[in-house]
Amino acid sequence: MRALVDAIRAQGTVLPGGILKVDGLINHQLLPQLTREMGETFARSFGPLKPTKVVTIEVSGIAPALATSMVLGVPMVYARKKRPVTMQGPVYTAQSVSRTKGGVVELFVSHEYLSADDRVVVIDDFLASGGTLLALAGMIRESGAQLLGMGCVVEKAFENGRANLASLGVPVRTLANIVRMDEGGTLVVEAGH
Amino acid sequence: MRALVDAIRAQGTVLPGGILKVDGLINHQLLPQLTREMGETFARSFGPLKPTKVVTIEVSGIAPALATSMVLGVPMVYARKKRPVTMQGPVYTAQSVSRTKGGVVELFVSHEYLSADDRVVVIDDFLASGGTLLALAGMIRESGAQLLGMGCVVEKAFENGRANLASLGVPVRTLANIVRMDEGGTLVVEAGH
Repeated sequence: MRALVDAIRAQGTVLPGGILKVDGLINHQLLPQLTREMGETFARSFGPLKPTKVVTIEVSGIAPALATSMVLGVPMVYARKKRPVTMQGPVYTAQSVSRTKGGVVELFVSHEYLSADDRVVVIDDFLASGGTLLALAGMIRESGAQLLGMGCVVEKAFENGRANLASLGVPVRTLANIVRMDEGGTLVVEAGH
Repeated sequence: MRALVDAIRAQGTVLPGGILKVDGLINHQLLPQLTREMGETFARSFGPLKPTKVVTIEVSGIAPALATSMVLGVPMVYARKKRPVTMQGPVYTAQSVSRTKGGVVELFVSHEYLSADDRVVVIDDFLASGGTLLALAGMIRESGAQLLGMGCVVEKAFENGRANLASLGVPVRTLANIVRMDEGGTLVVEAGH
Protein backbone atom coordinates (compact mmCIF):
# COMPACT_ATOMS: atom_id res chain seq x y z
CA MET A 1 0.00 0.00 0.00
CA ARG A 2 1.87 2.95 -1.43
CA ALA A 3 0.44 5.68 0.84
CA LEU A 4 1.30 3.69 3.95
CA VAL A 5 4.86 2.97 2.82
CA ASP A 6 5.36 6.68 2.11
CA ALA A 7 3.90 7.64 5.50
CA ILE A 8 6.14 5.20 7.39
CA ARG A 9 9.20 6.43 5.47
CA ALA A 10 8.26 10.03 6.35
CA GLN A 11 7.21 9.54 9.98
CA GLY A 12 8.52 6.22 11.26
CA THR A 13 11.48 6.23 13.62
CA VAL A 14 13.54 3.52 15.28
CA LEU A 15 13.88 3.95 19.03
CA PRO A 16 16.63 2.57 21.28
CA GLY A 17 16.07 -1.14 21.73
CA GLY A 18 15.10 -1.53 18.08
CA ILE A 19 11.48 -0.51 18.53
CA LEU A 20 9.65 0.91 15.52
CA LYS A 21 7.62 4.00 16.35
CA VAL A 22 4.66 4.70 14.07
CA ASP A 23 2.53 6.45 16.69
CA GLY A 24 1.36 9.12 14.25
CA LEU A 25 -0.18 6.51 11.94
CA ILE A 26 -1.19 3.47 13.96
CA ASN A 27 -0.51 3.39 17.70
CA HIS A 28 -1.62 6.77 19.05
CA GLN A 29 -2.98 8.86 16.18
CA LEU A 30 -5.00 7.53 13.25
CA LEU A 31 -5.32 9.30 9.90
CA PRO A 32 -8.81 8.74 8.52
CA GLN A 33 -7.97 8.44 4.83
CA LEU A 34 -4.98 6.17 5.44
CA THR A 35 -6.99 3.98 7.82
CA ARG A 36 -9.87 3.77 5.36
CA GLU A 37 -7.46 2.64 2.64
CA MET A 38 -6.08 -0.06 4.97
CA GLY A 39 -9.62 -1.39 5.30
CA GLU A 40 -10.27 -1.22 1.57
CA THR A 41 -7.03 -3.04 0.80
CA PHE A 42 -7.68 -5.85 3.28
CA ALA A 43 -11.28 -6.11 2.06
CA ARG A 44 -10.09 -6.52 -1.54
CA SER A 45 -7.82 -9.38 -0.44
CA PHE A 46 -10.25 -11.19 1.83
CA GLY A 47 -13.72 -10.22 0.58
CA PRO A 48 -13.75 -12.97 -2.08
CA LEU A 49 -13.35 -15.54 0.74
CA LYS A 50 -16.79 -14.49 2.08
CA PRO A 51 -15.92 -13.77 5.72
CA THR A 52 -18.69 -13.35 8.28
CA LYS A 53 -16.51 -11.73 10.93
CA VAL A 54 -13.33 -9.73 11.40
CA VAL A 55 -11.41 -10.55 14.59
CA THR A 56 -8.61 -8.46 16.05
CA ILE A 57 -6.77 -7.82 19.33
CA GLU A 58 -7.08 -4.68 21.44
CA VAL A 59 -5.77 -1.95 21.32
CA SER A 60 -4.04 -1.01 18.09
CA GLY A 61 -5.72 -3.66 15.97
CA ILE A 62 -9.13 -2.07 16.46
CA ALA A 63 -8.80 0.76 13.94
CA PRO A 64 -7.66 -1.24 10.89
CA ALA A 65 -10.04 -4.08 11.82
CA LEU A 66 -13.01 -1.71 12.08
CA ALA A 67 -12.10 -0.07 8.77
CA THR A 68 -12.01 -3.53 7.18
CA SER A 69 -15.29 -4.61 8.76
CA MET A 70 -16.96 -1.43 7.47
CA VAL A 71 -15.97 -2.24 3.89
CA LEU A 72 -16.88 -5.93 4.21
CA GLY A 73 -20.13 -5.17 6.05
CA VAL A 74 -19.55 -7.82 8.74
CA PRO A 75 -19.16 -7.47 12.54
CA MET A 76 -15.75 -6.97 14.13
CA VAL A 77 -14.78 -8.60 17.42
CA TYR A 78 -11.74 -7.54 19.41
CA ALA A 79 -10.04 -9.97 21.75
CA ARG A 80 -9.55 -8.46 25.20
CA LYS A 81 -6.23 -8.68 27.03
CA LYS A 82 -7.89 -8.37 30.42
CA ARG A 83 -11.18 -10.06 31.14
CA PRO A 84 -13.66 -7.21 31.72
CA VAL A 85 -16.39 -7.41 34.37
CA THR A 86 -19.01 -7.72 31.63
CA MET A 87 -17.45 -10.94 30.29
CA GLN A 88 -19.05 -13.34 32.74
CA GLY A 89 -19.98 -16.28 30.49
CA PRO A 90 -17.68 -18.88 28.91
CA VAL A 91 -14.66 -17.58 27.01
CA TYR A 92 -12.03 -18.74 24.58
CA THR A 93 -8.66 -17.87 26.05
CA ALA A 94 -5.00 -18.32 25.19
CA GLN A 95 -1.62 -16.97 26.19
CA SER A 96 1.43 -15.87 24.29
CA VAL A 97 4.75 -14.31 25.16
CA SER A 98 5.26 -10.83 23.76
CA ARG A 99 8.80 -9.65 23.24
CA THR A 100 7.88 -6.01 22.55
CA LYS A 101 5.31 -5.73 25.34
CA GLY A 102 7.40 -7.76 27.78
CA GLY A 103 5.78 -10.68 29.54
CA VAL A 104 2.78 -12.85 28.88
CA VAL A 105 -0.21 -11.63 26.89
CA GLU A 106 -3.52 -13.29 27.72
CA LEU A 107 -6.42 -13.12 25.27
CA PHE A 108 -10.15 -13.48 25.89
CA VAL A 109 -13.05 -13.78 23.44
CA SER A 110 -16.57 -14.48 24.65
CA HIS A 111 -18.35 -17.51 23.22
CA GLU A 112 -21.21 -15.14 22.43
CA TYR A 113 -19.42 -13.50 19.53
CA LEU A 114 -17.50 -16.33 17.87
CA SER A 115 -19.03 -19.63 16.83
CA ALA A 116 -18.69 -22.59 14.48
CA ASP A 117 -20.79 -20.74 11.89
CA ASP A 118 -18.20 -17.99 11.50
CA ARG A 119 -15.75 -17.50 8.66
CA VAL A 120 -13.05 -15.32 10.17
CA VAL A 121 -10.47 -12.89 8.88
CA VAL A 122 -7.94 -11.74 11.48
CA ILE A 123 -6.66 -8.17 11.16
CA ASP A 124 -3.94 -6.72 13.39
CA ASP A 125 -1.46 -3.86 13.45
CA PHE A 126 1.89 -5.68 13.46
CA LEU A 127 3.23 -8.98 12.23
CA ALA A 128 6.42 -9.52 14.22
CA SER A 129 7.14 -13.09 15.35
CA GLY A 130 3.46 -13.98 15.03
CA GLY A 131 3.15 -15.54 18.48
CA THR A 132 0.07 -13.61 19.58
CA LEU A 133 -1.62 -14.21 16.22
CA LEU A 134 -0.97 -17.95 16.57
CA ALA A 135 -2.58 -17.84 20.02
CA LEU A 136 -5.61 -16.08 18.54
CA ALA A 137 -5.78 -18.62 15.71
CA GLY A 138 -5.90 -21.38 18.33
CA MET A 139 -8.90 -19.73 19.98
CA ILE A 140 -10.65 -19.43 16.61
CA ARG A 141 -9.99 -23.11 15.91
CA GLU A 142 -11.36 -24.00 19.35
CA SER A 143 -14.58 -22.13 18.55
CA GLY A 144 -15.09 -24.23 15.44
CA ALA A 145 -14.99 -21.14 13.24
CA GLN A 146 -13.04 -21.28 10.01
CA LEU A 147 -9.97 -19.06 9.75
CA LEU A 148 -9.77 -17.66 6.21
CA GLY A 149 -6.75 -15.40 6.36
CA MET A 150 -4.68 -12.92 8.30
CA GLY A 151 -3.91 -9.31 7.49
CA CYS A 152 -1.41 -7.10 9.30
CA VAL A 153 -0.72 -3.46 8.61
CA VAL A 154 3.05 -3.62 9.14
CA GLU A 155 5.25 -6.68 8.75
CA LYS A 156 8.70 -6.86 10.29
CA ALA A 157 10.06 -9.38 7.85
CA PHE A 158 13.21 -10.02 9.88
CA GLU A 159 11.19 -11.39 12.81
CA ASN A 160 9.97 -14.32 10.70
CA GLY A 161 6.29 -14.06 11.57
CA ARG A 162 5.23 -15.14 8.09
CA ALA A 163 7.14 -18.41 8.40
CA ASN A 164 5.70 -18.99 11.87
CA LEU A 165 2.14 -18.52 10.57
CA ALA A 166 2.68 -20.86 7.60
CA SER A 167 1.43 -23.84 9.60
CA LEU A 168 -2.04 -22.25 9.62
CA GLY A 169 -2.31 -22.76 5.88
CA VAL A 170 -4.10 -19.47 5.23
CA PRO A 171 -3.13 -16.43 3.17
CA VAL A 172 -1.20 -13.75 5.07
CA ARG A 173 -1.46 -10.20 3.69
CA THR A 174 0.57 -7.24 4.90
CA LEU A 175 0.45 -3.63 3.70
CA ALA A 176 4.00 -2.46 4.45
CA ASN A 177 7.13 -4.45 5.09
CA ILE A 178 10.02 -3.33 7.30
CA VAL A 179 12.92 -4.99 5.55
CA ARG A 180 15.62 -3.63 7.81
CA MET A 181 15.90 -1.14 10.65
CA ASP A 182 18.42 -0.13 13.27
CA GLU A 183 18.94 2.57 15.86
CA GLY A 184 21.45 4.31 13.63
CA GLY A 185 18.55 5.61 11.60
CA THR A 186 18.24 2.85 9.02
CA LEU A 187 14.59 2.18 8.18
CA VAL A 188 14.02 0.32 4.94
CA VAL A 189 10.33 0.03 4.10
CA GLU A 190 8.82 -1.72 1.11
CA ALA A 191 5.30 -2.56 0.04
CA GLY A 192 3.76 -5.48 1.87
CA HIS A 193 2.49 -8.54 0.06
CA MET B 1 -30.12 7.60 17.53
CA ARG B 2 -33.02 5.27 16.91
CA ALA B 3 -31.05 2.22 15.71
CA LEU B 4 -28.79 2.35 18.75
CA VAL B 5 -31.69 2.67 21.20
CA ASP B 6 -33.37 -0.33 19.57
CA ALA B 7 -30.15 -2.35 19.68
CA ILE B 8 -29.57 -1.60 23.38
CA ARG B 9 -33.17 -2.51 24.19
CA ALA B 10 -32.74 -5.79 22.30
CA GLN B 11 -29.26 -6.77 23.50
CA GLY B 12 -28.37 -4.75 26.59
CA THR B 13 -28.43 -6.50 29.96
CA VAL B 14 -27.84 -5.36 33.51
CA LEU B 15 -25.34 -7.49 35.41
CA PRO B 16 -25.04 -7.93 39.17
CA GLY B 17 -23.51 -4.79 40.64
CA GLY B 18 -25.57 -2.61 38.32
CA ILE B 19 -23.22 -2.86 35.36
CA LEU B 20 -24.66 -2.33 31.89
CA LYS B 21 -23.48 -4.91 29.38
CA VAL B 22 -23.51 -3.84 25.73
CA ASP B 23 -20.63 -6.04 24.62
CA GLY B 24 -22.34 -6.98 21.36
CA LEU B 25 -22.51 -3.34 20.26
CA ILE B 26 -19.68 -1.39 21.84
CA ASN B 27 -17.28 -3.15 24.21
CA HIS B 28 -16.35 -6.42 22.51
CA GLN B 29 -18.13 -6.64 19.16
CA LEU B 30 -18.78 -3.71 16.81
CA LEU B 31 -21.49 -3.68 14.16
CA PRO B 32 -20.23 -1.78 11.11
CA GLN B 33 -23.46 -0.05 10.09
CA LEU B 34 -24.34 0.95 13.65
CA THR B 35 -20.80 2.24 14.28
CA ARG B 36 -20.82 4.17 11.02
CA GLU B 37 -24.10 5.83 12.02
CA MET B 38 -22.60 6.81 15.38
CA GLY B 39 -19.85 8.61 13.49
CA GLU B 40 -22.29 10.27 11.11
CA THR B 41 -24.46 11.47 13.99
CA PHE B 42 -21.56 12.93 15.96
CA ALA B 43 -20.18 14.52 12.79
CA ARG B 44 -23.53 16.22 12.12
CA SER B 45 -23.46 17.68 15.64
CA PHE B 46 -19.85 18.78 15.73
CA GLY B 47 -18.85 19.28 12.09
CA PRO B 48 -20.19 22.86 12.02
CA LEU B 49 -17.74 23.73 14.83
CA LYS B 50 -14.85 22.99 12.43
CA PRO B 51 -12.82 20.54 14.53
CA THR B 52 -9.28 19.66 13.49
CA LYS B 53 -9.01 16.59 15.69
CA VAL B 54 -11.08 13.91 17.41
CA VAL B 55 -9.69 12.76 20.76
CA THR B 56 -10.80 9.65 22.64
CA ILE B 57 -9.63 7.21 25.32
CA GLU B 58 -8.57 3.62 24.72
CA VAL B 59 -10.10 1.03 24.40
CA SER B 60 -13.80 1.27 23.71
CA GLY B 61 -13.77 4.90 22.61
CA ILE B 62 -11.63 4.07 19.59
CA ALA B 63 -14.36 2.68 17.33
CA PRO B 64 -16.91 5.53 17.61
CA ALA B 65 -14.10 8.09 17.54
CA LEU B 66 -12.59 6.60 14.38
CA ALA B 67 -16.01 6.47 12.72
CA THR B 68 -16.47 10.15 13.57
CA SER B 69 -13.01 11.12 12.36
CA MET B 70 -13.65 9.33 9.05
CA VAL B 71 -16.77 11.41 8.42
CA LEU B 72 -15.13 14.66 9.55
CA GLY B 73 -11.91 13.92 7.66
CA VAL B 74 -9.65 14.87 10.59
CA PRO B 75 -7.12 12.77 12.57
CA MET B 76 -8.16 10.86 15.68
CA VAL B 77 -5.92 10.57 18.74
CA TYR B 78 -6.56 8.07 21.51
CA ALA B 79 -5.29 8.74 25.01
CA ARG B 80 -3.36 5.78 26.37
CA LYS B 81 -3.99 4.39 29.84
CA LYS B 82 -0.48 2.99 30.10
CA ARG B 83 2.48 4.86 28.75
CA PRO B 84 3.81 2.71 25.89
CA VAL B 85 7.53 2.32 25.21
CA THR B 86 7.17 4.40 22.06
CA MET B 87 5.92 7.43 24.02
CA GLN B 88 9.30 8.78 25.07
CA GLY B 89 8.85 12.53 24.60
CA PRO B 90 6.84 14.98 26.73
CA VAL B 91 3.24 14.01 27.49
CA TYR B 92 0.05 15.51 28.82
CA THR B 93 -1.14 13.34 31.67
CA ALA B 94 -3.95 13.28 34.21
CA GLN B 95 -5.60 10.90 36.62
CA SER B 96 -9.18 10.12 37.49
CA VAL B 97 -10.93 7.62 39.71
CA SER B 98 -13.10 5.12 37.85
CA ARG B 99 -15.94 3.51 39.72
CA THR B 100 -16.71 0.88 37.06
CA LYS B 101 -13.08 -0.02 36.37
CA GLY B 102 -12.09 0.18 40.02
CA GLY B 103 -9.12 2.29 40.97
CA VAL B 104 -7.25 5.14 39.38
CA VAL B 105 -7.17 5.66 35.62
CA GLU B 106 -4.12 7.45 34.29
CA LEU B 107 -4.20 9.06 30.84
CA PHE B 108 -1.33 9.95 28.50
CA VAL B 109 -1.30 11.95 25.27
CA SER B 110 1.95 12.82 23.53
CA HIS B 111 2.67 16.49 22.86
CA GLU B 112 3.32 15.44 19.27
CA TYR B 113 -0.35 14.92 18.47
CA LEU B 114 -2.14 17.67 20.37
CA SER B 115 -1.23 21.34 20.20
CA ALA B 116 -2.53 24.88 20.64
CA ASP B 117 -3.59 24.91 16.98
CA ASP B 118 -6.11 22.12 17.51
CA ARG B 119 -9.87 22.42 17.75
CA VAL B 120 -10.91 19.24 19.53
CA VAL B 121 -14.03 17.14 19.75
CA VAL B 122 -13.90 14.40 22.39
CA ILE B 123 -15.75 11.16 21.60
CA ASP B 124 -16.09 8.30 24.08
CA ASP B 125 -18.24 5.24 24.68
CA PHE B 126 -19.90 6.05 28.03
CA LEU B 127 -20.90 9.15 29.91
CA ALA B 128 -21.27 8.00 33.51
CA SER B 129 -20.06 10.41 36.19
CA GLY B 130 -17.80 12.15 33.67
CA GLY B 131 -14.67 12.02 35.81
CA THR B 132 -12.38 10.57 33.17
CA LEU B 133 -13.71 12.98 30.55
CA LEU B 134 -13.00 15.91 32.88
CA ALA B 135 -9.45 14.63 33.30
CA LEU B 136 -9.07 14.46 29.51
CA ALA B 137 -10.52 17.97 29.16
CA GLY B 138 -7.85 19.20 31.57
CA MET B 139 -5.12 17.71 29.37
CA ILE B 140 -6.63 19.36 26.29
CA ARG B 141 -6.72 22.71 28.10
CA GLU B 142 -3.10 22.24 29.14
CA SER B 143 -2.13 21.71 25.50
CA GLY B 144 -3.67 25.05 24.55
CA ALA B 145 -6.08 23.33 22.17
CA GLN B 146 -9.69 24.46 22.13
CA LEU B 147 -12.29 21.96 23.31
CA LEU B 148 -15.39 22.30 21.12
CA GLY B 149 -17.67 19.60 22.45
CA MET B 150 -18.05 16.10 23.83
CA GLY B 151 -19.96 13.18 22.40
CA CYS B 152 -20.65 9.89 24.16
CA VAL B 153 -22.42 6.89 22.70
CA VAL B 154 -24.32 5.94 25.86
CA GLU B 155 -25.29 8.27 28.71
CA LYS B 156 -26.23 6.95 32.12
CA ALA B 157 -28.35 9.92 33.09
CA PHE B 158 -28.63 8.85 36.73
CA GLU B 159 -24.87 9.17 37.23
CA ASN B 160 -25.02 12.92 36.61
CA GLY B 161 -22.16 13.15 34.16
CA ARG B 162 -23.85 15.89 32.15
CA ALA B 163 -24.07 18.13 35.21
CA ASN B 164 -20.44 17.41 36.07
CA LEU B 165 -19.31 18.38 32.56
CA ALA B 166 -21.34 21.62 32.57
CA SER B 167 -18.38 23.58 33.94
CA LEU B 168 -16.57 22.98 30.64
CA GLY B 169 -19.10 25.16 28.85
CA VAL B 170 -19.23 23.01 25.71
CA PRO B 171 -22.07 21.10 24.08
CA VAL B 172 -22.44 17.49 25.24
CA ARG B 173 -24.12 15.10 22.79
CA THR B 174 -25.14 11.53 23.57
CA LEU B 175 -26.79 8.98 21.28
CA ALA B 176 -28.70 6.83 23.78
CA ASN B 177 -29.71 7.55 27.33
CA ILE B 178 -30.09 4.95 30.07
CA VAL B 179 -32.84 6.51 32.15
CA ARG B 180 -33.11 3.70 34.65
CA MET B 181 -31.74 0.21 35.14
CA ASP B 182 -31.54 -2.41 37.85
CA GLU B 183 -30.54 -6.01 38.28
CA GLY B 184 -34.16 -7.09 38.31
CA GLY B 185 -34.18 -6.64 34.55
CA THR B 186 -35.30 -3.03 34.32
CA LEU B 187 -33.53 -1.25 31.48
CA VAL B 188 -35.18 1.94 30.30
CA VAL B 189 -33.46 3.40 27.25
CA GLU B 190 -34.37 6.59 25.45
CA ALA B 191 -32.80 8.60 22.67
CA GLY B 192 -29.80 10.66 23.70
CA HIS B 193 -29.67 14.39 23.24
